[in-house]
Amino acid sequence: MRIASFFSFWRLRAAAHRLPEPAHVPRPVLSSGPDMPKQDARHPSEAYSRLKVRFRDVGRMSGVIEALGRDFLTAMPEGAYKSRLGQISFLFRRMHEDLIDKSVYEDLEEAINHETSFPGQWDEWDRANLREMEALYLQFCHVAPELWEKKASMSYEGRRVHREVLAANDWEAAKDFLQEQIDLHKAIASARRSARPRSSGNDSGHDGEDRSLYQYLLEEHMPGMTVAEVERLFDGYEKEIEQIIPAVLERQKKSQPPVPLRGHFAPEAQLWINKALLKVIGFDFSRGGLYETGHNPVEGGTPDDTRLVIKTADSRNFLDSMKSTLHEGGHGLYIQGLPRKEWRYQPVAADLGAMVQESQALLVEMIIGRMPEFFAFLSPRLEGLFQGIGDPDLQAGNLYALKTHVQPTVDRKNADEVTYFQHVLVRFYLERDLIEGRLTLDDLPDAWAEKMQKYIGVVPKTPAEGCLQDVHWFVGKFGYFPAYALGHMMAAQIYQAMERDFPDIRSQVLRGRFDQISTWLREKIHSQGRLIHYNALLKDITGEELSWKPLLTHIQRRYLKLS
Amino acid sequence: MRIASFFSFWRLRAAAHRLPEPAHVPRPVLSSGPDMPKQDARHPSEAYSRLKVRFRDVGRMSGVIEALGRDFLTAMPEGAYKSRLGQISFLFRRMHEDLIDKSVYEDLEEAINHETSFPGQWDEWDRANLREMEALYLQFCHVAPELWEKKASMSYEGRRVHREVLAANDWEAAKDFLQEQIDLHKAIASARRSARPRSSGNDSGHDGEDRSLYQYLLEEHMPGMTVAEVERLFDGYEKEIEQIIPAVLERQKKSQPPVPLRGHFAPEAQLWINKALLKVIGFDFSRGGLYETGHNPVEGGTPDDTRLVIKTADSRNFLDSMKSTLHEGGHGLYIQGLPRKEWRYQPVAADLGAMVQESQALLVEMIIGRMPEFFAFLSPRLEGLFQGIGDPDLQAGNLYALKTHVQPTVDRKNADEVTYFQHVLVRFYLERDLIEGRLTLDDLPDAWAEKMQKYIGVVPKTPAEGCLQDVHWFVGKFGYFPAYALGHMMAAQIYQAMERDFPDIRSQVLRGRFDQISTWLREKIHSQGRLIHYNALLKDITGEELSWKPLLTHIQRRYLKLS
Repeated sequence: MRIASFFSFWRLRAAAHRLPEPAHVPRPVLSSGPDMPKQDARHPSEAYSRLKVRFRDVGRMSGVIEALGRDFLTAMPEGAYKSRLGQISFLFRRMHEDLIDKSVYEDLEEAINHETSFPGQWDEWDRANLREMEALYLQFCHVAPELWEKKASMSYEGRRVHREVLAANDWEAAKDFLQEQIDLHKAIASARRSARPRSSGNDSGHDGEDRSLYQYLLEEHMPGMTVAEVERLFDGYEKEIEQIIPAVLERQKKSQPPVPLRGHFAPEAQLWINKALLKVIGFDFSRGGLYETGHNPVEGGTPDDTRLVIKTADSRNFLDSMKSTLHEGGHGLYIQGLPRKEWRYQPVAADLGAMVQESQALLVEMIIGRMPEFFAFLSPRLEGLFQGIGDPDLQAGNLYALKTHVQPTVDRKNADEVTYFQHVLVRFYLERDLIEGRLTLDDLPDAWAEKMQKYIGVVPKTPAEGCLQDVHWFVGKFGYFPAYALGHMMAAQIYQAMERDFPDIRSQVLRGRFDQISTWLREKIHSQGRLIHYNALLKDITGEELSWKPLLTHIQRRYLKLS
Repeated sequence: MRIASFFSFWRLRAAAHRLPEPAHVPRPVLSSGPDMPKQDARHPSEAYSRLKVRFRDVGRMSGVIEALGRDFLTAMPEGAYKSRLGQISFLFRRMHEDLIDKSVYEDLEEAINHETSFPGQWDEWDRANLREMEALYLQFCHVAPELWEKKASMSYEGRRVHREVLAANDWEAAKDFLQEQIDLHKAIASARRSARPRSSGNDSGHDGEDRSLYQYLLEEHMPGMTVAEVERLFDGYEKEIEQIIPAVLERQKKSQPPVPLRGHFAPEAQLWINKALLKVIGFDFSRGGLYETGHNPVEGGTPDDTRLVIKTADSRNFLDSMKSTLHEGGHGLYIQGLPRKEWRYQPVAADLGAMVQESQALLVEMIIGRMPEFFAFLSPRLEGLFQGIGDPDLQAGNLYALKTHVQPTVDRKNADEVTYFQHVLVRFYLERDLIEGRLTLDDLPDAWAEKMQKYIGVVPKTPAEGCLQDVHWFVGKFGYFPAYALGHMMAAQIYQAMERDFPDIRSQVLRGRFDQISTWLREKIHSQGRLIHYNALLKDITGEELSWKPLLTHIQRRYLKLS
């Protein structure tokens, strides 16, 4: 039953009533000023100033998506799953619409012309920012928004699907979803290719430019990287490492096996030491945190809100949660070190892609985090924390032996530092063949087993040990795997340069002093955002472009005790 | 130093190169189908269908803002404060731009015409939804987006400012910020007024329609409520309650004072009982949760993701965290019960405003949550949880005495159920005078003391005990306070109807059986969203429109033991 008098209050409509027209909404504009950060400062090119405003909004939406994504894995109740997927894909659609608005296209053209005509008015950061804006536009301009929405939604759905099929060891159930992901990413890659005019010829790659579908997926994760470059580095390294692995295993047979961890390591204590180690390496807890999840570890966020998410600790083995923490911690330092004051939300302030990200993670987790000096620092503190003074499993030498034990295994996540590369190599070959249509999902399990046998000498007994183990393809990360091995190479190359710059680096690690290390990384890498290409960066820091040789040297030193 | 070959890869620009134009982005459209929820179903009016798409986006953005707001108070690191403010105000700006787009104005006009011309094609839900869309448009169409952005940003900033000035007892520091909030809200109210054409005459209110600035703020929180109606209800109730308070205090002097809580009540145990009580009243933990914060309690979210946030427990007093839990729990039941399957994200699926929200919170916290039967259910379980069988402070009678003890105090948050009304009355008068310009902030402390003396008989000794105590004005909530007292009246009126419908309600509460109660609330109130005006709802449920009489009867029964 209705109350007419109140409804006349609500419904202000008489026969002749008209709604008021809306007020005009002016677009935000930038202004000039002496201490204004570059991100907010007006530029002589009006078109570029307008682009900065637009990309600032895109960056904000990206930051919001990051926050929703972390929350998804931690505090969000299960029943909110579907609506959260809807919110995230909705934001992606909006971001996409913003990026490919006609005015972006027009402003980019105008700004590019201005840069060409008045180069003196463009410093290197503005040039780089404009270049990154252009690259983002090209990434999206021919990809239909619904494809991107689908990609976003399926990436979160994929996490859940993967958890289910892995637990159920059900390859058949996985195939349909994976096929959908493969088809979607081939469509996205194809759309990106059509946005890129050919320098000449056709798509076969014979004109020197790689126009394979896999190339377009690879470069989304690793800007500036090519499939040919991956092949060059991988071929070179594989020839060497395949000789070294037998030598390492032989040598290892002659030493005492390490003492396995025993007893109970309370999850709260693990959480404490993990947070403490993050503080030691320089992670800023006022701008980030360590959280636990039932899902796989992940990190993400913005420089002010960097959230590292690791799996809930297993009380039988503290090295697992510590490994994840160190790995995510390396990522976290990078994110926190990005140029947030001057370039927050602008494309140039992004990290340099998956390879450089993984280089930071692996530098901390594998290179530094497995040094004898690191364990010498850690061990006495563990003796106190876990109340086991003199416990054989907690001794520095034993921890070192545990973490440098080489054991070919079917499980990539638990691979040792030496055979780590092989796991990546196998996945690189297989995912490239899947995307290029040279391999079907029906044939994948056999192809997987065949390559595992060839490169690692082990064979999975179940799909869970085989092609179901990784979440990457389920969340749509094709062209990502190479980043781990390339990042490992880059980490070793960087560490070599650090050793040259601080000859006493080992004694610093021994004393738990990371400030010089983290400052060096921040100044030389993190604070550069996307200013220059990774090879220019490496040339500046190490004297040469990316090479597999420093990693080989590192492996030989650590695992064959060669100098 | 740059690597030219890679830059030619990145910079695809030759002298004659042109960027590809972007692909066309079609707007999403609705479709028809037999089991399609109303929110997604196409309607004979194309304009209304377009509006549903647009408001769905607005609803999603609102859901995202809710998630970011909860995270702000719980998991977010402190250093992300500024950038989170930026993200939230950015989303508000986008939502605002969406709401006042020219096409919304045009589609509303067209849909309204369709409804007038073809009433048979509009069921009551679609009519209500259209009406709510119109109301939202009117709320925003003349408010400049930067005002709304500022409102959003200052609401979060206000939380932090309040915490600081309250801790420092610093009224002078508070005044500037409060003045900014008052000026901002006067500007917003004024803009809203200009969107509403006068029925006749001027803004003085003599034509029967209240066009005071305070009215426009009040109705944002309580749609359909008028200042005159608030005055009518408050005047009627105040005449009675001011006689009753002395009688209650007299009667209380003759009974034993309650035994204060003593000992230690572990925060983890409190968290457990609070979660357990939420489950008892029917809160669904697959679609929500209970979280702790250092800030004031708050609730919010969407029907799938309803987060109740209470202050970290004080181990000396479990009744505080329990009170907050029950209060937020009432809010939470309402949010979870909204019509999410059929009308998710549409305006008609929103709650009926602050008064009705507070009625649900106070029904659980004060009416049901302070019944002798509730304590009889609770007490033995507390004896087990806190390990104190026979402890005098935990006895049902004692808990009842503690929670129904009447004690005039300066502190609204700890006010007893009887003098609760006076606290609201004082704030109603003062905030109205502040907004209408009849009272300045310089004069507020004296005015506050004068009214506290008049209505409650106590006087604050410091600003922290006085006008600094509430967060509401700091976060921009003007026109909200009346909702507490009106909600209390509505809660008592609803409970009266429930007693009529379930004569055995007391024995249900005694046994901890709330399913009949929560089902009744969901069917009669929560699931109705904004279908009908609150007075139509009350008429349906209780037989009469909102009245202060049921609350008076309740107070007399509980505090004077009258029937």
